[in-house]
Amino acid sequence: MTLSLTRLSQTLLLAGLLLQVSPVEAQPKGADPYAYLTASALAKIAPLPETAAIRPTGRTREFTLDVRPGSWEPVKGVKASAITINGTVPGPLIRVAEGDRVVVTVKNNLEESTSIHWHGLHVPNAMDGVDGLTQEAIKPAQTFRYEFLASHAGTFMYHSHSHARAIEQIDAGLYGMLVIDPQNSRGHLKSDRELLMMLSAWNITEDGGHAGMAGGHGGGAGGMQYNYFTINGRAYPDAAEWAVKQGDVVRIRIANVSNLVHPMHLHGHDFVVLAKDGEPLKTPQTMNTVNVAPGETYDIAFIANNPGAWMFHCHELHHTMNGSTQPGGLIQVIRYEGSAAVPAAPKAAPAPAKPSSGAGHGSGH
Amino acid sequence: MTLSLTRLSQTLLLAGLLLQVSPVEAQPKGADPYAYLTASALAKIAPLPETAAIRPTGRTREFTLDVRPGSWEPVKGVKASAITINGTVPGPLIRVAEGDRVVVTVKNNLEESTSIHWHGLHVPNAMDGVDGLTQEAIKPAQTFRYEFLASHAGTFMYHSHSHARAIEQIDAGLYGMLVIDPQNSRGHLKSDRELLMMLSAWNITEDGGHAGMAGGHGGGAGGMQYNYFTINGRAYPDAAEWAVKQGDVVRIRIANVSNLVHPMHLHGHDFVVLAKDGEPLKTPQTMNTVNVAPGETYDIAFIANNPGAWMFHCHELHHTMNGSTQPGGLIQVIRYEGSAAVPAAPKAAPAPAKPSSGAGHGSGH
Amino acid sequence: MTLSLTRLSQTLLLAGLLLQVSPVEAQPKGADPYAYLTASALAKIAPLPETAAIRPTGRTREFTLDVRPGSWEPVKGVKASAITINGTVPGPLIRVAEGDRVVVTVKNNLEESTSIHWHGLHVPNAMDGVDGLTQEAIKPAQTFRYEFLASHAGTFMYHSHSHARAIEQIDAGLYGMLVIDPQNSRGHLKSDRELLMMLSAWNITEDGGHAGMAGGHGGGAGGMQYNYFTINGRAYPDAAEWAVKQGDVVRIRIANVSNLVHPMHLHGHDFVVLAKDGEPLKTPQTMNTVNVAPGETYDIAFIANNPGAWMFHCHELHHTMNGSTQPGGLIQVIRYEGSAAVPAAPKAAPAPAKPSSGAGHGSGH
Repeated sequence: MTLSLTRLSQTLLLAGLLLQVSPVEAQPKGADPYAYLTASALAKIAPLPETAAIRPTGRTREFTLDVRPGSWEPVKGVKASAITINGTVPGPLIRVAEGDRVVVTVKNNLEESTSIHWHGLHVPNAMDGVDGLTQEAIKPAQTFRYEFLASHAGTFMYHSHSHARAIEQIDAGLYGMLVIDPQNSRGHLKSDRELLMMLSAWNITEDGGHAGMAGGHGGGAGGMQYNYFTINGRAYPDAAEWAVKQGDVVRIRIANVSNLVHPMHLHGHDFVVLAKDGEPLKTPQTMNTVNVAPGETYDIAFIANNPGAWMFHCHELHHTMNGSTQPGGLIQVIRYEGSAAVPAAPKAAPAPAKPSSGAGHGSGH
Repeated sequence: MTLSLTRLSQTLLLAGLLLQVSPVEAQPKGADPYAYLTASALAKIAPLPETAAIRPTGRTREFTLDVRPGSWEPVKGVKASAITINGTVPGPLIRVAEGDRVVVTVKNNLEESTSIHWHGLHVPNAMDGVDGLTQEAIKPAQTFRYEFLASHAGTFMYHSHSHARAIEQIDAGLYGMLVIDPQNSRGHLKSDRELLMMLSAWNITEDGGHAGMAGGHGGGAGGMQYNYFTINGRAYPDAAEWAVKQGDVVRIRIANVSNLVHPMHLHGHDFVVLAKDGEPLKTPQTMNTVNVAPGETYDIAFIANNPGAWMFHCHELHHTMNGSTQPGGLIQVIRYEGSAAVPAAPKAAPAPAKPSSGAGHGSGH
Repeated sequence: MTLSLTRLSQTLLLAGLLLQVSPVEAQPKGADPYAYLTASALAKIAPLPETAAIRPTGRTREFTLDVRPGSWEPVKGVKASAITINGTVPGPLIRVAEGDRVVVTVKNNLEESTSIHWHGLHVPNAMDGVDGLTQEAIKPAQTFRYEFLASHAGTFMYHSHSHARAIEQIDAGLYGMLVIDPQNSRGHLKSDRELLMMLSAWNITEDGGHAGMAGGHGGGAGGMQYNYFTINGRAYPDAAEWAVKQGDVVRIRIANVSNLVHPMHLHGHDFVVLAKDGEPLKTPQTMNTVNVAPGETYDIAFIANNPGAWMFHCHELHHTMNGSTQPGGLIQVIRYEGSAAVPAAPKAAPAPAKPSSGAGHGSGH
C-alpha cells in the first residue's frame, strides 16, 4: 500500500498537481483534490419539487401479484419458510408515474386470508387494503383487483394489512417497494445511479422454519427476537454490492418495513436527505446517519467523490448479524469502479516488546 | 360498492365535472376532484408563531390532582391494577394560556411517595417536581401545591418523577396531558378539529395484576415486555373513533409518555408536522409517519380531503396488539362523517383453478 | 425555601423591579424577569456556517491510542471487565482543526484483533478502519498508524470496527469522541461552556464480568439486555455534575455509540439543535428532547436563564437505571453556580383526614 501510494504520488508530482505529496493528499480528486473533505457540494442540491396539481395521465399500468407460501434464503445456508410474491422476497418493484391508473391483481394462494396496503399513497378508501376496515379479506384462492390513480411522486411500499396476521405475514416476506415518478421531471434531482434499499427483519428458528411471530407477546420481548436482517431480501455478505463511479450523484431510496429502527450510517461521505415518506424536505439536511423508523421511507443522495469500498450499514450493530454471526445483516457495500477487490493491506509495525504505559500521547484532551 | 360508485359516477357525469368516470376518480372532491392526490395544500400552512415575550395574564387557574391506587381496563376484559388521577388514566387534561398562574394541588393517596414533573414547561426550579433534586418527595397522605406561570404555548405532559419509582408509577398510569394556548392566537393555525393522543404502554400480568416494572433489568429485556398499548388510556378497538368532516383541517396533539418509540403512520393522507415538544418548526415538514420517541410531543395537522375510514397507527406492529391478539393497541380510527360504518366489500373474483406461475406481470421491475 | 424566596421578593420589591411578588415570579432574570418562559432567544442563534473549501493547515497532530484489556467501574461498586484506551473509557478526546494532518498510532495490546473507524470523518478509504474491507485487522501486539487530513468541523466518534467482534469491543469500551474545530471561527456559535456527552451501554454480569455480547442473538433479545448506561463512562450519580452560570450560552456535544436509542430530555429549558452528525442544520430547531439514535451525534445549545439544578436525561426510563436500581444511568445534572447543593424542601401540608372523592377540580377538561 505504502508502495503503490508512493508511485501514485510520484505521478501526481510529475503532473504538477501537488507541491507536497503524502499518502493522505495523494488521491486523484479532480479539480479540487480536497473536495472530499466537505459536504458543501451537497448543500447546493435543490429541494425536490412537488407537483401541485396531479392530473390523470390516461395511461393504465397493470401488475399481478401472486402471493403464495414458499421459502427464502436471506443468506446462503439459511433457509426459511416465507411468503413470496411472484416467487421473491421482496415482491416485484411497482414503478409508475403520478396520475397513472394503477391496476394490481392480487392472487391469494396462501392458506390464510390477506389484503394489501399501499403504504404512503393517497388512494380511495375502498382501495386502502385494510382488511376489516376498508375491505373484506382476500380469502385463500380468491383474487382481488386494486385500482387507483397513482398519487404524488416518491418512495413507498406495499405490504400485508391482514386483520389478525399482518405481523406474521410481513415477517414472512409479504411486501415490496413502490416508486412513483413525477409527471414532470423539471427541477428533480438528476442522479447518475438510483439504488433501492428495502429493509426487513426475520425471525428464523433453528430448524429452518419461520417462527410464527417475533416478539412473543403476552410475556415476550416485543419484536426483539429478530435474528436476520435483509436489504432487498438478502443479508450481508449476500446482498449484491453497489457499484458507483467517481463523480456520480447517487440516489438511494430506503424503505423500512421491519418493526425495528435502523439508523443507517454511511462511511467516508455525507449524504443529503431529500425526502421523507415521499415528501420533499424544503430544506434538505446533510448527515451521515439516517434513523429509519418502521414505516418510514427516505430518499437520500451522495456525491461519489472519495474512491474506495465503503460500508453503508445499520448502527444498531445487532442488526449487522446473521443469527449469532457478525458481520452480516444490514451492511451494504458501495464500491467505486476500479477499486481493488481486496482490502488494502497497510503494513503494521510490530509493537514494542514492552508496551508503553497507559498514558496517552496527544493534546486537546 | 361497485354499484353505488357507478351511481355516483353518473351523477358526476351529469354535473359535467368529469368526462371519463371510473371507480377511481368518482369521488366528490370539491373543486379539484384530484386534490387528494397531493399534499400540496399542506405546504401552504404557515409555521406556528411563537410569543416573543410572555407576560403574566393576572389570571389564576387552579387544579386538583387526586393520585391514588385503582384499576384500569385498557381494553374490555383486561383489568390491571393502576394509579389513577381523579379516577382516570390518563389524568385530566390541564389546559391554560401563556402567562396564566397555574396552581396544582397534588394529593398523594398512594402508599408510596411521588412527585409531579411538568414535562416541557419552563417552571422555577423548586416547582420542577424532581423528587430528590428539586423537592422532597410527596409522602403518602401529603399534599403538595405546585405554582408557576404557564410558559410558551404548546403540547406538553405531566407525569411522576419519583426518585426511585418513576418507571413503575408511569407504567401504572401516573400521567396526563397539558396544553398551553398562546396569549394571542393571531397567526396560529385555525383548525376545525383538535384531537389529543396520549400514547402509553402497560405490562399486565396474567392474573390481572400490574407487573412491578416492565423490562426486568439486571438481566432482562429493557422495557420490552410491555404487552398493552393505549391512546388516551384505551386500546383498539376500545379507543373512541375520531369523526371528521370533509374539508376539515384537523390538528392532532401527540404525547408519548411510554418508554418505547412509536412511529405513527396515517393512511390515505399526509400530515404536516407543525411543532415538536411545543416548539414550532420554522419549516413545517410533510410526511405520513412521525416517529414519536419517549418524552416527545408533536403537533400535526392534516386536511380531510379523502373520505372514508382510515387508520392512524403505530408501525411497530407489536404495538398494535392486545397481549397476544392483533389488531389492538395503538390504532386510531378516523372516520369521515357519512362514511359507512361497515367496511366496503368489493367483490373478489375466484382465483383461476390453476394459479399462474410465479412469474410477475407488469413493468418497471 | 418559602422563607428565602420571601426575602428575595422583598429585595426585588425594594429594587422596584416588580409590583407584585410571589414565589413564581421572584427569580432574578435580568432585564426581562419573564425571559425564561420562552425559547425565543434561541431562535436568534444563527445556523453554524460550513467551510466550503478545506485546505491543509500544514500542521500535524499526533496521538497514540493504547488499547488493552482492563476493568471499568461505571458506577461505584460495579466493576466490569473492559477494554480501555490509554487506561480509560471512553478513550481520550481527539480534538483537531479542519485540514490538520492527523496521525493516530493504535497499539493493540488486546488478545484479539481490532481496527479503528473514524465515524463521520471523510478519510481516504485505506484509513477508514473497516477490518476486512479497507484494511487487514490489527493483530494482537501489532501497531497501526492511521493518517488523514481532518475533514469538516463537527462532533464525531472513533470506535472499533473489528470484523467479527465490533459489538463486543464497543460494548466493552473501545471508543472515544473526536471533535474537529473549524478553520475559521467566524460566524460560529460563541458559547460560554462547551460540554461533551458520550452515551454508551453496558451488559455487566453478576460476577462483575463483562458479558460477551448483549442481546443473545440466535434466539435472544437483540441488544436489549444492557443494564448499565454511561455518560462519558460514568452512570448517575457518579457522572460529574455540570456547572453553568446565569446567562451562559451552553453548547453540548452528544455522541451515541451504544446500540440503543436515547431520547435526551432537558428540564426547565429548551435547547436548539445546531448540527447533526457534524453537519449544520440550515434551520436550527428548538426542542426539549432530542432522540439520539445509535451512530448519531448532535450539537445542541441552551441559554442558562432559569437558575437551579436541572436534569438532562434519557426518557427511555430503563436507561436511567443502574442494574435494577433507579435512578441511575443516563442522568446528567446541570447545576447553576450558587444553587443550593441540597434539594429545596417546600412544605407539604398534610392531606385532609378524609381525602376528597376522585372528582377533579379544574377546567379545560
